[in-house]
Amino acid sequence: MSKERIYLFDTTLRDGQQTPGVDFSLEDKIAVSALLDNFGIDYVEGGYPGANPTDTAFFAKKRTGHSSFTAFGMTKRAGVSASNDPGLAALIQSKADAVCLVAKSWDYHVKVALNITNEDNLASIRESVEAVVRSGKEALLDCEHFFDGYKANPDYAIACARAAYEAGARWVVLCDTNGGAQPGEIAGIVKTLIAAGIPGDHLGIHAHNDTGQAVANSLAAIEAGVRQVQGTLNGIGERCGNANLITLIPTLALKPYFAERFDTGLSQDKLKEITALSHAFDEMLNRSPGAQSPYVGASAFATKAGIHASAILKDPRTYEHVTPESVGNYRKVMVSDQGGKSNFVDALARRGITVSRDDPKLDRLIEIVKEREATGYAYEGADASFELLAHRTLGRVPDFFEVVSFRVMVERRFDARGELRTVSEAVVKIMVDGAEHMSVAEGHGPVNALDIAMRKDLGAYQAEIADLELADYKVRILNGGTEAITRVLIESSDGTGARWWTVGVSDNIIDASFQALQDSIVYKLMKNRDLAGRVAAE
Amino acid sequence: MSKERIYLFDTTLRDGQQTPGVDFSLEDKIAVSALLDNFGIDYVEGGYPGANPTDTAFFAKKRTGHSSFTAFGMTKRAGVSASNDPGLAALIQSKADAVCLVAKSWDYHVKVALNITNEDNLASIRESVEAVVRSGKEALLDCEHFFDGYKANPDYAIACARAAYEAGARWVVLCDTNGGAQPGEIAGIVKTLIAAGIPGDHLGIHAHNDTGQAVANSLAAIEAGVRQVQGTLNGIGERCGNANLITLIPTLALKPYFAERFDTGLSQDKLKEITALSHAFDEMLNRSPGAQSPYVGASAFATKAGIHASAILKDPRTYEHVTPESVGNYRKVMVSDQGGKSNFVDALARRGITVSRDDPKLDRLIEIVKEREATGYAYEGADASFELLAHRTLGRVPDFFEVVSFRVMVERRFDARGELRTVSEAVVKIMVDGAEHMSVAEGHGPVNALDIAMRKDLGAYQAEIADLELADYKVRILNGGTEAITRVLIESSDGTGARWWTVGVSDNIIDASFQALQDSIVYKLMKNRDLAGRVAAE
Repeated sequence: MSKERIYLFDTTLRDGQQTPGVDFSLEDKIAVSALLDNFGIDYVEGGYPGANPTDTAFFAKKRTGHSSFTAFGMTKRAGVSASNDPGLAALIQSKADAVCLVAKSWDYHVKVALNITNEDNLASIRESVEAVVRSGKEALLDCEHFFDGYKANPDYAIACARAAYEAGARWVVLCDTNGGAQPGEIAGIVKTLIAAGIPGDHLGIHAHNDTGQAVANSLAAIEAGVRQVQGTLNGIGERCGNANLITLIPTLALKPYFAERFDTGLSQDKLKEITALSHAFDEMLNRSPGAQSPYVGASAFATKAGIHASAILKDPRTYEHVTPESVGNYRKVMVSDQGGKSNFVDALARRGITVSRDDPKLDRLIEIVKEREATGYAYEGADASFELLAHRTLGRVPDFFEVVSFRVMVERRFDARGELRTVSEAVVKIMVDGAEHMSVAEGHGPVNALDIAMRKDLGAYQAEIADLELADYKVRILNGGTEAITRVLIESSDGTGARWWTVGVSDNIIDASFQALQDSIVYKLMKNRDLAGRVAAE
Repeated sequence: MSKERIYLFDTTLRDGQQTPGVDFSLEDKIAVSALLDNFGIDYVEGGYPGANPTDTAFFAKKRTGHSSFTAFGMTKRAGVSASNDPGLAALIQSKADAVCLVAKSWDYHVKVALNITNEDNLASIRESVEAVVRSGKEALLDCEHFFDGYKANPDYAIACARAAYEAGARWVVLCDTNGGAQPGEIAGIVKTLIAAGIPGDHLGIHAHNDTGQAVANSLAAIEAGVRQVQGTLNGIGERCGNANLITLIPTLALKPYFAERFDTGLSQDKLKEITALSHAFDEMLNRSPGAQSPYVGASAFATKAGIHASAILKDPRTYEHVTPESVGNYRKVMVSDQGGKSNFVDALARRGITVSRDDPKLDRLIEIVKEREATGYAYEGADASFELLAHRTLGRVPDFFEVVSFRVMVERRFDARGELRTVSEAVVKIMVDGAEHMSVAEGHGPVNALDIAMRKDLGAYQAEIADLELADYKVRILNGGTEAITRVLIESSDGTGARWWTVGVSDNIIDASFQALQDSIVYKLMKNRDLAGRVAAE
């Protein structure tokens, strides 16, 4: 049975731009479109040339090799001919391969927002699409608020879709603009539209997540006959977001319910890149990846309860709906205070540490982890600290150095020029091989100062940590308020490209940072001696 | 047309406990069950008495007044009679109103995980349910991996469900334990089960979110005939989470597609409490509320683009699928660098500040907000800081005090007893009415010390801030790594019950904290004079 092709349309750079807190620069847009192009997305909707300088500059060159580079914009204004509409001209003159126009398809909007007649709106659709087709570019038409428009005036909504189709649009996209439609409604309306003569292989779906069903709505539309699906990376978008392509793609490609009937055009190998794609985009936006994101989240294939874990180790098919490898993720057996012994032994083995189940030191380690996690340590996200704790408890960490004392000071005062300035200074005393090393450093803030001071003079080990870098720093206040415990996570990297996380917990943020910094350095020294980090860091 | 009742079953405290990073203490469980009971949830599954000390203690008393207090556990072991199974006994002897037993319904699991015959498993189900019924408690049976079990061996899966039903179970719950089922599959299987003789009004659905469709799967099951839906607050749960009740409930109660046919048992007024319920739970878990969560997220009803916003202000029905008030949320016209003038004027009006659209100071305010938000300030989450900024820019903040300088020190060293101790000390110099006040304080950490020092001696204003308290403190590192900008959000409260958030941004965490602390105090003084806080804080 031959499969039907589903076309993937990404609007991260256009509809995704509406996300609170998100603003793509020209460089950002170039980087994201490259990611999407390399991954194999069919359409990359890059923005609205003519509407703002960034998008105009972005569309001054063709930015994709494989994907259809798509410009978004509005149909022509009423009272102006298509050839005289400057907005339309900007779209057609851009370096886009395709132009996706948005039009009203809800008669109420035509009246209240545009203040024109229904007929005039149909004419705008028709003439604008014809203008795009004439230019040689592919034409798409977004029917805004299509499902609400259909519920209010089904004939008119269908008329809008038909006008676009008959004018030569390659795709007529049905948009659930306010995100309130239910999958059953969408399926019914799509079927009616197809029965009215607009073929499914010219229909697309653009869903929003306001009832938590953007993905389900998209899939319901596909089942009902549409063949293009629009969404964004990691589901970003206005309000509750757009349909998440990172969730949609694996579902279409890996779940037999869809994979038997449909083809996304992506190979199995491409699919394995989807976790990396999702995380690369999060990094670009400086967002913490959602640990619980379907398929790609750090916890997507993680189990906690001891009982489950034994069976998983035997046969993952009994507990996993798809294999983590198929999406480039991995099976996480969590280090947590609810973990059974098997969990721990396995977690240690993954780090190249072998210990017997009956070793009393293992019980001691489990006890310490439980105690610490009760006070705020989260070893799940701090592999290096866990590894060090394991090494220390099982008795095998060399005494590289000891921080005898430190003092961190932040002072804000008027300087000689009468300006308010804040200065951060740290002093540390470190014993290395019986000799005391005292260092002082200034930094952007207290933690930066402490970090620099700690790594300024480590005696015999100084050369070894030259390539050590603090890559990221996360703070979390637990318990809140005045009894707050602070948890600090530090990500470090070195010249080999390895990255590792360490953790510190205290009611004092400087103290917590100190613990994480110290662990980072010790881990680096252990790693240099191949005593740690034997498994590739995630 | 009479509506059919949908029963709401919350498993936050049982299945939700499997969430990475979540661990409920006894006090937590008591607090959460009270929240759920007060809200009107039908069943509160509180945990597994007998399996661990916390749950055993939790079930030593009946913890709910309205909700059915439900204990979870396993069916009897093979080879032991129901009356001799200690696990079952613990459930039956607990103070629960209902007992929800989990049983295998996938023949492969019966063989591989339990190592017993299919018939023995059916007997375990039958005898365990009968034992619960005999005890006078309500019996529920979770059919684990039901949908995969059905696909592998439909007759056996149905037999398991039937065994529970015929033994007297009030509810037979179909669990999509690995979260991979699709809505269409669930609908088909549920219909088949009902056709096989197990009535929909005795069926429940327990979905997981591994393909991002836990809510859609639950609704598909309800459409197909089930009448109980299981989920958790804010969708917490293992891996990708359970079905999110906070999304399900408003969808069932407000979307005509469901609301016309079904009744959740919750009044319109109760529904308005759902945003508060969701946020209270996030606070309890020390999680940042998801801004993009359907219905309750801070951005759920927020628009960014200037064009949209004007039309919204005219007629929200054109853009919103439900009214924010119906779920206790509010329409957010965002203070953001993309906000049009109308947005600002409206945001200020909401805070009791009137300013003319043509006032040049308004342009200045907008400019400052744009600049600051580009560097990391987030006025969306810091109402009080925004209000102060507005007052300052529009020219109306009294000079209460001026912090001339401050110095914060954190020192870790060995004390007289040879133990490592960390001490935090802050010194501040404040000018009040021309007189200099210098104060020193120690604290848990540098920010705590600075907070105490700043509020120790404010001259003439000292008595006014006696009831000022730091309620919460949040830190966020933006941009990450070495060029990190720190954003601090502080929540303050006072004797009147008012709560407000202030923000500070700097590459120095102490500096950022100082800004937020200072704003908090100034806001309090303004509020005392009825110059600020005229609109109730959210």
